[in-house]
Formats: sequence, C-alpha cells, structure tokens
Amino acid sequence: MTDQPTRVDIHEEGPREGFQIEAGPIATADKVRFCEALAETGLHDVQCVSFVDPRRVPGMADAVEVAQSIRQRPDVHYSAIALNRRGYERAVQTPLHITGNLQMSASNTFSIRNTNKDNAETLVEQRRQLEFFRDRGITVDSGIVMTCFGCNFEGAIAPGTVRDCVGSLLALADEFGITLDRVRLADTVGWASPAGIQRVLGLVRETWPDLRLALHLHDTRGTGLANALMGLQMGIDSFDSSCAGLGGCPFAGHAGAAGNICTEDLVFMCEEMGIETGINLDALIECARLAEDIVGHPLPGKIMHGGSLSKYRQGAVA
Amino acid sequence: MTDQPTRVDIHEEGPREGFQIEAGPIATADKVRFCEALAETGLHDVQCVSFVDPRRVPGMADAVEVAQSIRQRPDVHYSAIALNRRGYERAVQTPLHITGNLQMSASNTFSIRNTNKDNAETLVEQRRQLEFFRDRGITVDSGIVMTCFGCNFEGAIAPGTVRDCVGSLLALADEFGITLDRVRLADTVGWASPAGIQRVLGLVRETWPDLRLALHLHDTRGTGLANALMGLQMGIDSFDSSCAGLGGCPFAGHAGAAGNICTEDLVFMCEEMGIETGINLDALIECARLAEDIVGHPLPGKIMHGGSLSKYRQGAVA
Repeated sequence: MTDQPTRVDIHEEGPREGFQIEAGPIATADKVRFCEALAETGLHDVQCVSFVDPRRVPGMADAVEVAQSIRQRPDVHYSAIALNRRGYERAVQTPLHITGNLQMSASNTFSIRNTNKDNAETLVEQRRQLEFFRDRGITVDSGIVMTCFGCNFEGAIAPGTVRDCVGSLLALADEFGITLDRVRLADTVGWASPAGIQRVLGLVRETWPDLRLALHLHDTRGTGLANALMGLQMGIDSFDSSCAGLGGCPFAGHAGAAGNICTEDLVFMCEEMGIETGINLDALIECARLAEDIVGHPLPGKIMHGGSLSKYRQGAVA
Repeated sequence: MTDQPTRVDIHEEGPREGFQIEAGPIATADKVRFCEALAETGLHDVQCVSFVDPRRVPGMADAVEVAQSIRQRPDVHYSAIALNRRGYERAVQTPLHITGNLQMSASNTFSIRNTNKDNAETLVEQRRQLEFFRDRGITVDSGIVMTCFGCNFEGAIAPGTVRDCVGSLLALADEFGITLDRVRLADTVGWASPAGIQRVLGLVRETWPDLRLALHLHDTRGTGLANALMGLQMGIDSFDSSCAGLGGCPFAGHAGAAGNICTEDLVFMCEEMGIETGINLDALIECARLAEDIVGHPLPGKIMHGGSLSKYRQGAVA
C-alpha cells in the first residue's frame, strides 16, 4: 500500500446526477439549497446541473435558474456539464465554472448507442469541440474514458483498449496544445471489480507514469467502495462521487439500481484510512439526509443511515 | 496480493439474521422455502434459525417447525445458533447441524451491556458452556470475537485487545482438548475500515500464523465489501454474510441501517477476482429476490437490483 495517497480530491456530482434522474419534480429552491449545503462541507467542486435538452431531461429545465440562484463561496467550484455546443452556450451565460473536457468510450458499441457516433467519428467530433472551446475561451481540463471496465453491449473490455483511448485523448489534447489536468476512467455501467481496476490502472499507469488518473465509479453491483479501495492502493487521489448515492443507473437490468458511489461513505473510508479529504463528514451526512428529504424516498448511502462514529469517539454515549 | 486465496467458504446467515429482525410476521413455509432455495445455490452452510426466547424474538417462535420442515440436501449444513443451554436443548432435538462455539467481545462494556457479564465472567460462563457441550456430545468448531474493530460504548478497540481475546479463546479450547476450526473476527457494530481490518488481522496473524481466521462483516457504513477486499488481500478465505443483505443493525444510530454484508455481492466480487466460491451467482440472486418478495420491502443487496453480468457476457443483449 505504499502508493496510497495522503489526500484525495473528491468531485461531487450528486446534484446533477440526482436531479436529472429523479422521477418527481424537484423545486428549484431545493436544488439551490442542496448545492449551497454541499459547498459548506469542505467540498471544493460541486457539479450542480447539466445543460441538456429539457424535453429529454425535464429535471434540468431549470438549470439556468439554479445556476444563477446559488450563492457562491469563493473557494468552491460550482460546475456543470453540457453535451454539445448548444448546451455550452447556455452554460457559459451562467455564473458557474464551465470547463470543457474530452471524452470517448472504450466500448465502440456503447458509443454508437449512446451518441450515434463510433469511436472514429467521436474523435472527429471531439476535434470540432476543441475548436469551439478554443474559440469561446473555454478551458479544457480533463479527459474521460467511459465503459473502461466492461459494457453491456460488448462485454469485457480489454485494458489495452482503455489504454488506446487514453492515448487518443492525450494525442488530441497535444494537437491543441492542451495539457489535461487528469484523465478520468469511468465504470459507466457498473462492471468493475477490484481485479478489473487493478488491471486497467496498472496498464494505463505503466504507459503514462506521470499522468494523473481519476476514477468515476458506480456501485451497481455493490463493489463500488472496494473498487475505490483498490484505486487508493494504486495511488489514485481523485474520485467522482455522489452525495447520498444520488443518481442511478439507466443501463442496469433493473430500475432502482445504484449509480455513483456515495460521497460520504467514500469520505468515511478515506478518513478512517488516514487519507485526508478536507471534508466535514458530519456536515456531509446532513447533506445526504437533506437529499433524502428533497427527493422524498430512501437513497443508497449507508453511513447516513448507520450514523457517523464521531459521537461515539467522543465518549460512551450509546 | 500474494496472500489472496483461490477459494473462499461463505457461511450464509440470511435466514437467521433476516427473520429475527423483520417487523412483520413471516410465514413458516416462506422461511423453509428460502432456506431450501439457498441450499440449491452451492452454499454449503446455511444458518436457518436461532433458538432464542420467543418472547424476545417473536420471529423465531417457529424455529423448531422451520428446522423440522426443511428438506435437507446431503451436501449442505443447515445450522442454527443458540445463546444458552435452554436454546441448545431445543436445537439438538431438531435435524439441524448444531455445533457449539466460543465467544467473547473485545469490548468489555459491550459484553456487559449485551450479556450482563464482563469479560472475566464471560470466560467463566464459556467454561461452563464447554462442559455442557462435552456432556451433550456437541462438537465445538469455532470461536468468535465480537466488536473487534470498534464499539459504540468504548470507541476504538486496540488490536492488542482483540489478540488477547483470541488468545483467551484458544487457551480455553486447549484446556478442553478442542482444536478450533477457525476463529471469527466480527465487526459487530459496523466500525471497521480497511485500515482497521489490516491492523487487527495483521497482529492476530502475526501471533498465530497457522490459525484460520474468518471475517464477520457488517455494512453499516458502506465499507463492507472494501473491508472484505482487504481481508481477501490478507489471505482470509472464510466469510459470514447474508443473502440480499437481510438483517440489520440494532446497534446503529438509525433504524434501517444495513447489517451483514450481502452474500451475492460478495460472491460477485470474489468470482470477478478469480476467487472460487462454488456458488451459482444467478441462482443466489434469485434467492435474494425471493427474500425481498418474502419480507415485502427492498433489501440492501446491490447486484440483485443491478443484475448479474452473465447474460451480457454471453453476447450483446442490452
């Protein structure tokens, strides 16, 4: 465990993940309140909304209003995602911290089904997107490779395929004179096991020892935090996660399957392992409970129900 | 990861854990059906019931009837627990596989609150229990140390305290000429993190390199499978778990907190890591869904909702 980091960065995606997938309408004020509460916990990066077609994602129809209503702390990035130029045009009008990224999928079939473009077409599109980012002065900070650990259409994904995708994104960034801050490896459809994490990370790190890698993990099959542990053991110090486990997995076999790993459970694990997160766990657990109140049903996070250990550590109270 | 086992034994505790904690009455026939279904999955050890005071645990009032109704396969142990001689007297009248065990708690305060006896008194009681087992011809096969990783009353538990408890149980077994098949280290109140697992296992294995250790893990705070992963990495090849995550944690801060780690999620992780379990995962997932049908509410297991990967591996089907 010599590679284990002393500190990790956690990129919070709960508001965006949760509010776009929840069936019922959620009040704009609640979305704003949740983002503001998250920003009080020590999180430095809160992904608040996505700028997507409101006909396809009705839960994000108020994205601009949410973005404009959040009272921002100066030490927090309030970010968002957009899937295309139209989305970015809306996004950059708001006070959110908008950055561009590069993305492709290790599964060519997933790419076709998800975006109607195969990997070659995706690279062409990414190049156009980079021109757009350059023209609009949008900083490009990261790359993401989706379905790195398996795909419902293609089955197992060879680690070499992931390596090739990372190579393609790095070459593209290089072509535009961009240095990516990190490349995120995503378990988009929840296939990863600790063994898969080890294989893929091993090969990518062997190829680019100095490249900062991040993990975007799902807990669809229960191994989310075990996968994160394997990542930590291999030196990963950057994770995407979702407060309360907000979100879900539209690609899973059954409705109600878990999506992103849960931020406060991840924070608990890191802190217990002596890895700093900079986050106040008890405050974050309160955010998770607020999320449950807002969506009106139980969410998958565990420590929000089990309770933190801080009160027990302070003395015999049970 | 050189210590990683090639095969693990999984001791299924779902029926006993679940049926004693569920609020609503569960039909005896459903309990029997669930135990029988579990025994068809490749599990070799299914803990079916507990013989406890029905006034305290009404869900176990029909334990004898359940035990007598199960159609047993010859290759499966259908086991049970009892907490005292009265319970054992009932248990041995049934066709279940009844064994004795030795137990104590690493937290003296937990022991007092849970059993009204401190650790010294517990050892005296355990000695009496061993005499009873000897007189009744009941085989003693394992020891268990509870609250190995922390306690709501005492807070953190020093690894040395766990080692001393293991030593006490081994000495007691030795006094009676018994060789324990394994000693189980239990995270009774859900405090463990991978770091805690590493510390405690490290010390106990250093002290008794040839002693077979098992882990009884809870998922109260979300790290259950990450803790199991650390155990696997340290060579643990024996786990207790619960189908569908049946059960719960009466010691957690909030009702509805998760209890034992989920068997089918553990099986998924092991199999993906190349560790044999001898269990048919898809059949076990069906058992987990049966458990949800029986209890009438969602249970914590993840892969039962996310779906197994076997159908995707066979070809593009999504």
